[in-house]
Amino acid sequence: MPDTLTPDGLLAELATLLGPAGVLTAAEDIAPALADWRGLYQGKAMAVLRPANTQEVSACVTLCAAAGIPIVPQGGNTSMVGGATPTEDGNAVVLSLARMNRIRAIDPVDMTMTAEAGVIVKAAQDAAADANCLFPLSFGGEGTATIGGVLSTNAGGNTTVRYGNARELMLGLEVVLPDGKVWNGLRRLRKDNTGYALRHLFVGAEGTLGIVTAATLRLFAPPRANEVLFCSVRDEDAALAVFRRFRAVDETAIRAFEYMSGLGVDFAAKHIPGVTWPLAERADHTILVDLASTRADADLQSLAEQVLGDAMEAGEVIDAVVGGSEARRQALWRIREEHPEAQRKEGASVKNDVSVPVSKVPELIRRASAACVALIPGTRPVPFGHMGDGNIHMNLEQPEGMDGDAFLARSHDIMDTVNEVVRELDGSFSAEHGIGRLKTDMMEAWRGGAELDAMQRIKAALDPRGIMNPGKVLP
Amino acid sequence: MPDTLTPDGLLAELATLLGPAGVLTAAEDIAPALADWRGLYQGKAMAVLRPANTQEVSACVTLCAAAGIPIVPQGGNTSMVGGATPTEDGNAVVLSLARMNRIRAIDPVDMTMTAEAGVIVKAAQDAAADANCLFPLSFGGEGTATIGGVLSTNAGGNTTVRYGNARELMLGLEVVLPDGKVWNGLRRLRKDNTGYALRHLFVGAEGTLGIVTAATLRLFAPPRANEVLFCSVRDEDAALAVFRRFRAVDETAIRAFEYMSGLGVDFAAKHIPGVTWPLAERADHTILVDLASTRADADLQSLAEQVLGDAMEAGEVIDAVVGGSEARRQALWRIREEHPEAQRKEGASVKNDVSVPVSKVPELIRRASAACVALIPGTRPVPFGHMGDGNIHMNLEQPEGMDGDAFLARSHDIMDTVNEVVRELDGSFSAEHGIGRLKTDMMEAWRGGAELDAMQRIKAALDPRGIMNPGKVLP
Repeated sequence: MPDTLTPDGLLAELATLLGPAGVLTAAEDIAPALADWRGLYQGKAMAVLRPANTQEVSACVTLCAAAGIPIVPQGGNTSMVGGATPTEDGNAVVLSLARMNRIRAIDPVDMTMTAEAGVIVKAAQDAAADANCLFPLSFGGEGTATIGGVLSTNAGGNTTVRYGNARELMLGLEVVLPDGKVWNGLRRLRKDNTGYALRHLFVGAEGTLGIVTAATLRLFAPPRANEVLFCSVRDEDAALAVFRRFRAVDETAIRAFEYMSGLGVDFAAKHIPGVTWPLAERADHTILVDLASTRADADLQSLAEQVLGDAMEAGEVIDAVVGGSEARRQALWRIREEHPEAQRKEGASVKNDVSVPVSKVPELIRRASAACVALIPGTRPVPFGHMGDGNIHMNLEQPEGMDGDAFLARSHDIMDTVNEVVRELDGSFSAEHGIGRLKTDMMEAWRGGAELDAMQRIKAALDPRGIMNPGKVLP
Repeated sequence: MPDTLTPDGLLAELATLLGPAGVLTAAEDIAPALADWRGLYQGKAMAVLRPANTQEVSACVTLCAAAGIPIVPQGGNTSMVGGATPTEDGNAVVLSLARMNRIRAIDPVDMTMTAEAGVIVKAAQDAAADANCLFPLSFGGEGTATIGGVLSTNAGGNTTVRYGNARELMLGLEVVLPDGKVWNGLRRLRKDNTGYALRHLFVGAEGTLGIVTAATLRLFAPPRANEVLFCSVRDEDAALAVFRRFRAVDETAIRAFEYMSGLGVDFAAKHIPGVTWPLAERADHTILVDLASTRADADLQSLAEQVLGDAMEAGEVIDAVVGGSEARRQALWRIREEHPEAQRKEGASVKNDVSVPVSKVPELIRRASAACVALIPGTRPVPFGHMGDGNIHMNLEQPEGMDGDAFLARSHDIMDTVNEVVRELDGSFSAEHGIGRLKTDMMEAWRGGAELDAMQRIKAALDPRGIMNPGKVLP
């Protein structure tokens, strides 16, 4: 292979390799791959490559490495932080895994699934269900996001408190390395201590160390009992107290434990057809508790009644409603799931995906809210999210009547304000969304010194030419 | 600091730094640190360093790096594969973490513990229990092994099927890097996606990338209901079938699921005072099922009776006994725990710590047993271990009447024979014991190519002078 492949020569070679369906160059064809869905970034690229299998991905990477052309791997393009969009210089190619959407194997005895990177998360859930198993990863973008993407970003979501992040659901990976070599690490073992845990390095690396082309994932027994509760609680501390009560009684039954501010529920009830306050009286603080068990005789209603009874007596829970039916459970979940859309409809908002130790969630909510209101009077805090994981979406809605763009112009001030509180509480500035482009400039302040130095050494060791998703993750 | 520190100069500097208690050089003082407890290796060293805190570890590493002196980190020195003993050339120092045995913090709200590397696993369990929490890692060496050691080797043990390996119990690490810098990654967050997962690189690296000096660990709610069953089963397939039945009914209740051959139970009953066959009739295949739940009303006996009833009807379970009391449960566990000692008393034996996908455990046991008997007629297979994780200790006891040393002289032939079967079944040649010195020569055949190349690049990037535990893990 020529070491001096020109960009035009590269595209010609790629077209021969992948065929006409495999190399998109027309502006209208590649446009969707160049921008992120949040509208934060608008990049450029020479082409969008659509390899159909691992060998083609390997050949693409080998050719691009020879030509010195950077590669931006892309799954469902649902990154919250611009991790899958190319930069503006236009000298990169986007490599889409969309055509690699085959589930290679499901084994209900091993409780494993081997899926290619382009498999949509929802499709993986459905395939698992068809085999009477559960693939538990669940979050808003599951109908678009892909397996390769959720692993490359270590996605979290609603069920992390019970099943872990994407990382914990992964047993093995197949990766095309920056030199084009294929590493087949698709093991389906629960114990394998044979050298460094390479697979964990690629999870969360956002495609900067190689391209995940397939993964072996853990499956679980599907729950036979389910229940969902929606409660108004006295305050943030009471929300945490109720979490602790459930955890002490049955830690494995908590599938999700979500906090929502009353204002967030107000917005959902105002903007989303069919959503209403499910309790007789509005309150400033609410929780949604999703309980599940593989035991058909788990009697989750009794469990819920027992815990809620104690929590009401202690003044923590003000009022509560129990789903009772699948339709009611879905209706209660919808209040939570529509939070992003409701906030969008209410006006401009600034998102902060942060985490703190679980014990500090109440303090995070109170202090970050107060600090943002002090920064921009009238700002409406709408924190919500995964209290059981310490991961709160500390979102801020613009003041009523303020110009949305003027509010968004203060985004970085707002993020800095939230992050100052997060830092004081030993938290993280990116809980489940990753770094992408949006947060690379925070890496030095938060992870600088020995840690960032080690990351940069690893990057240089595995991708010495720096062609894998440049400008992402590392500053 | 002089870049040309001589060995003698180094020891003088270290003595000044650590004081007389911190640097052992007398032959009788350092002897215990030079051999592994299995008697596989007898190494040499210039000294044993005993730093008392992270700063002292950092200073030791900085000095040794300047002098180009290799460092062998050592915890409880319970490695099964010689991972913590120095090589024979005598030019290294052993760095013991024994004095760093402080539990820095326990938080029963966050459910986390921050423990120094030298904390004994049993002490960590006890400290968690005192805080009404559970630290679930449990295995034979827990009274001697240390937190630093179990993380550096990614220890597994009996409860992996429920709580995961040591890796899954770790939220954050403090590590002294090969250049002496300290990385404080002691986060206690459930979600933190901010760059590469460095912490996972040090877990299982057996001290070849740096020295783990402290860790933040996950705790769990302590079970309120417990039960243990011991069953004779028709064959290996029946054992697996019973595992599947329990998993389908309540996957979270299975704290351990252990297989034992009848011969292994015979050895325990023969050699261990107080151990007897717990069933009316001997059988060739047995299982031990440990059930637990945080729910006081979990009614594990009904669960067990329901599953066992179905399994008996299907001809899978022949006979069963349910513990019923804590004393009885411990007595049943003792049959399993005394397997290594009973095998030792019976004669010479060759150990194989291997894993396969859970579905292939029956085939592993049958095929590996047959192959070893074909290799050395009269060999007595005594497979036992963690069926629920696919991790079987595929041990072989010498033929009756054969000279033990003659049998052990065939160790490598036996290991090769077992591993050939393991490989055909997509398994691993080291499930939970790691590589150490014993298995480095297998890395090329099993992990060679892109994977081993990536590991070696990472090693060179983080430890360019190669001073961290040389001769271990990588060939």
